[in-house]
Amino acid sequence: MSAFEKLIKHSKKVSNFSHLASICGWDQASMMPAGGAEARSEAMAELSVHIHGLQTQPQLAEWFNDAENEALNTEQQATLREMKRSWQQANVLPEELVEAQSLAGSKCEHAWRSQRKENDWVGFEKNWAEVVKLSQEEAKIRSEATNLSPYDAMLEIYEPGTSSASLDIVFDDVKRWLPEMIDQAIEKQASESLITPSGRYPTAQQKALGLEVMQLLQFDFNHGRLDESVHPFCGGVPSDVRLTTRYNDSEFVQSLMGIVHETGHARYEQGLPKHLAATAAGEARSMGIHESQSLFFEMQLGRSAAFIERLASLCTQHFTNQDAAVFANDNLQKIYTRVQKDFIRVDADELTYPAHVILRYEIERDLINGVISYNDVPELWDTKMQHYLGLSTAGNYRDGCMQDIHWTDGAFGYFPSYTLGAMYAAQFMASMEQSVDVQGVIRSGDLTPIFDWLQQNIWSKGSLLTTDELVKQATGDVLNAKHFKAHLQQRYLNK
Amino acid sequence: MSAFEKLIKHSKKVSNFSHLASICGWDQASMMPAGGAEARSEAMAELSVHIHGLQTQPQLAEWFNDAENEALNTEQQATLREMKRSWQQANVLPEELVEAQSLAGSKCEHAWRSQRKENDWVGFEKNWAEVVKLSQEEAKIRSEATNLSPYDAMLEIYEPGTSSASLDIVFDDVKRWLPEMIDQAIEKQASESLITPSGRYPTAQQKALGLEVMQLLQFDFNHGRLDESVHPFCGGVPSDVRLTTRYNDSEFVQSLMGIVHETGHARYEQGLPKHLAATAAGEARSMGIHESQSLFFEMQLGRSAAFIERLASLCTQHFTNQDAAVFANDNLQKIYTRVQKDFIRVDADELTYPAHVILRYEIERDLINGVISYNDVPELWDTKMQHYLGLSTAGNYRDGCMQDIHWTDGAFGYFPSYTLGAMYAAQFMASMEQSVDVQGVIRSGDLTPIFDWLQQNIWSKGSLLTTDELVKQATGDVLNAKHFKAHLQQRYLNK
Repeated sequence: MSAFEKLIKHSKKVSNFSHLASICGWDQASMMPAGGAEARSEAMAELSVHIHGLQTQPQLAEWFNDAENEALNTEQQATLREMKRSWQQANVLPEELVEAQSLAGSKCEHAWRSQRKENDWVGFEKNWAEVVKLSQEEAKIRSEATNLSPYDAMLEIYEPGTSSASLDIVFDDVKRWLPEMIDQAIEKQASESLITPSGRYPTAQQKALGLEVMQLLQFDFNHGRLDESVHPFCGGVPSDVRLTTRYNDSEFVQSLMGIVHETGHARYEQGLPKHLAATAAGEARSMGIHESQSLFFEMQLGRSAAFIERLASLCTQHFTNQDAAVFANDNLQKIYTRVQKDFIRVDADELTYPAHVILRYEIERDLINGVISYNDVPELWDTKMQHYLGLSTAGNYRDGCMQDIHWTDGAFGYFPSYTLGAMYAAQFMASMEQSVDVQGVIRSGDLTPIFDWLQQNIWSKGSLLTTDELVKQATGDVLNAKHFKAHLQQRYLNK
Repeated sequence: MSAFEKLIKHSKKVSNFSHLASICGWDQASMMPAGGAEARSEAMAELSVHIHGLQTQPQLAEWFNDAENEALNTEQQATLREMKRSWQQANVLPEELVEAQSLAGSKCEHAWRSQRKENDWVGFEKNWAEVVKLSQEEAKIRSEATNLSPYDAMLEIYEPGTSSASLDIVFDDVKRWLPEMIDQAIEKQASESLITPSGRYPTAQQKALGLEVMQLLQFDFNHGRLDESVHPFCGGVPSDVRLTTRYNDSEFVQSLMGIVHETGHARYEQGLPKHLAATAAGEARSMGIHESQSLFFEMQLGRSAAFIERLASLCTQHFTNQDAAVFANDNLQKIYTRVQKDFIRVDADELTYPAHVILRYEIERDLINGVISYNDVPELWDTKMQHYLGLSTAGNYRDGCMQDIHWTDGAFGYFPSYTLGAMYAAQFMASMEQSVDVQGVIRSGDLTPIFDWLQQNIWSKGSLLTTDELVKQATGDVLNAKHFKAHLQQRYLNK
């Protein structure tokens, strides 16, 4: 057996255990009763330790060395590159640091759940200082191993090949036009009237509607299912994708578009190359590309005129005894494109969302690079919020720098993926529209040409290409914020 | 760390992986879409290999040796005894035999699924000969390791401490009175009229009823849940018990009593000693004792007059727009105690069921002990069916010796557990009734005293006692078929 074959075999073993972790993780979030939590945590921790043990087996170093001297075709070379990347990431940190981070992160996150409600920055800061310190250590080690800046080395975990230099370029571009565009959109919408849902939308009806929308989006129910969880997500494995949503009986807007969003993630997973299943090259390219698929579904398809027409008609069929004026085409479009300056990222609309992300990016970049200190964050947050969205968070930590879970356990480098995803999605749509009549296809009810394009250009590529190669092959260009700008202008300012 | 402590730590590790296997197994049967099967099988097989690897780690032998010389209290001694038993069982068979059995069993079982439908004994026999041969080899090895007869060594897997000599005594007792009692019951019921369900019983209504019955039976929903699967079972882990049932819209009888049955299994699991969780002494005592709890719920409680009264009343509440005569107290009692001689074990009633089991026991005992050959089975089956139930299966393999899945993959020694369970259940009830007014308690709607008795005498004991000790401490006697006989006489002949 060649070294490459040994690596593939090993990779499949790791993948088998990860499969169990995914399914049990989904179960934990969507099925498990509260009393099962303790034993489950122990079992999952045992599994994590085992997987980490497999990923750090000493003989792997030799296999990687040997495999690099073996005759491999292009696909095998890409597979080797991705396996090695994931092996390096699993091996770069000393065990003691990983354990210290796990402890500090759990402690900080757990306390944050009540501290946030109580707006208790002083309490939070005590735990968070340790989390930041350990993340800086992590970044330093990753930096030495990769010859990247500390923050770029963290970014590499989520967005391989993306540097803060390139982020600065696209985000600076966005910063130049976004605040003004937000003001213009709000001004334009100020005179519009809009009817918000006020009736009861039973869960069973919302679910039936959601399933029909998933069918329209050609979700493969032979390889996945829809359930409920407090925090919606897309989990499971490519051959069995587990999607969740959350229903609120007093409105349908969130769960409906939430399902469209998660179906985008799901179809990416379902469309990954089957012949590379269970190897690193068969996995999704990056967090940003994953988000580009969910946002392609939610923003590019889901909020487009033709799709809203379909949703309006489906709502009328599924929600009986409701005020039909809510689902009227025009009204639904207004609901789903309403712009509002607000404090909270997770509730933000398409247009203001990038401001929330860029703010976080700039702060975490400087924090991890050691340019600022953890206790500078509240003031910086306030300044930037005022600058980008005209809102002050002075003294309001709860709705300011304490609002997100990410930083509480050290997930620095993750935030940019959201807006990268939105920008990639716009660029993919611009490119797709050159060969596909997207709105016409949606109106026909058979969206196959849209999914064929995504399958061919994105899903089937797995991680065979780098992100830049992927985007360039699909669109003829590397990431360019102009597509995102044009999309937002067209949608929010009719330009 | 003492050797005993090392063993406990190791046992918890194995238990953590078994936890994942249980949850993913439940998922496979109740949640997973068909397209997920292939990848799941691979992941589950990988996990099995890993668990087997842990159970056969070479250092365990030394730890067991050392632990036996350590100062242990009574509970620790019992824990050590049970850990050692399960270790010996995992280590006694050579890998090649286990693999050969797995292959032959899968092949035979897979082919059986169509061969049974086609009544194809000749085709089946070809695969089955190999399964029997390998099981005989297994029994021989187990026999040498335990100084038991080959069949008793197989029985030991499911019913530790139970010998065929003791089974012969109780089963011979049953055989003396059962055939006549069946005839008398059928004669008695011949003149009774009975209304069978004929309407539609929507799944949602059946489920709501089932959940209410589980509440009456004090199932702990903080540590478990109810779902659906083709073959109902009770899975999961003690802190999170996963129960399933199967709904048929055209009748409610099966799913309702099926839920009562599985709830018996579930409460046993939920009631196991928590301080011994994840060690062998904290597990259920045996298959027979497990079945005694499900049959205590289904037969002793579930079909008793007071419980049927409750069910009748609950059915009337849950099934609206149905013919209420079906749920009338008397009629429901008749439905649930109808006796009928038939070919199929899984459809058999309480009274004829032991005949099906004793027939299988006698055949598998002689087969594994080498007294008969695999191709003697059809004729023996026919003879015994005629003898016990007056039915001939000559030429009818499908409804005869090819009806069960157990033997197709070599699970010899399992069948006696069903009737042992029924007998233990009757004996537990006889004993409980000396201190608890069972029917009065059921009529009060608060069944706590019943469950307190079971918790104290059965559930909390885990595997700390041997089966004989457990039964003797709970009832003052080892297993005695007279309680079962008295119960059946009273229920079916009003004696």
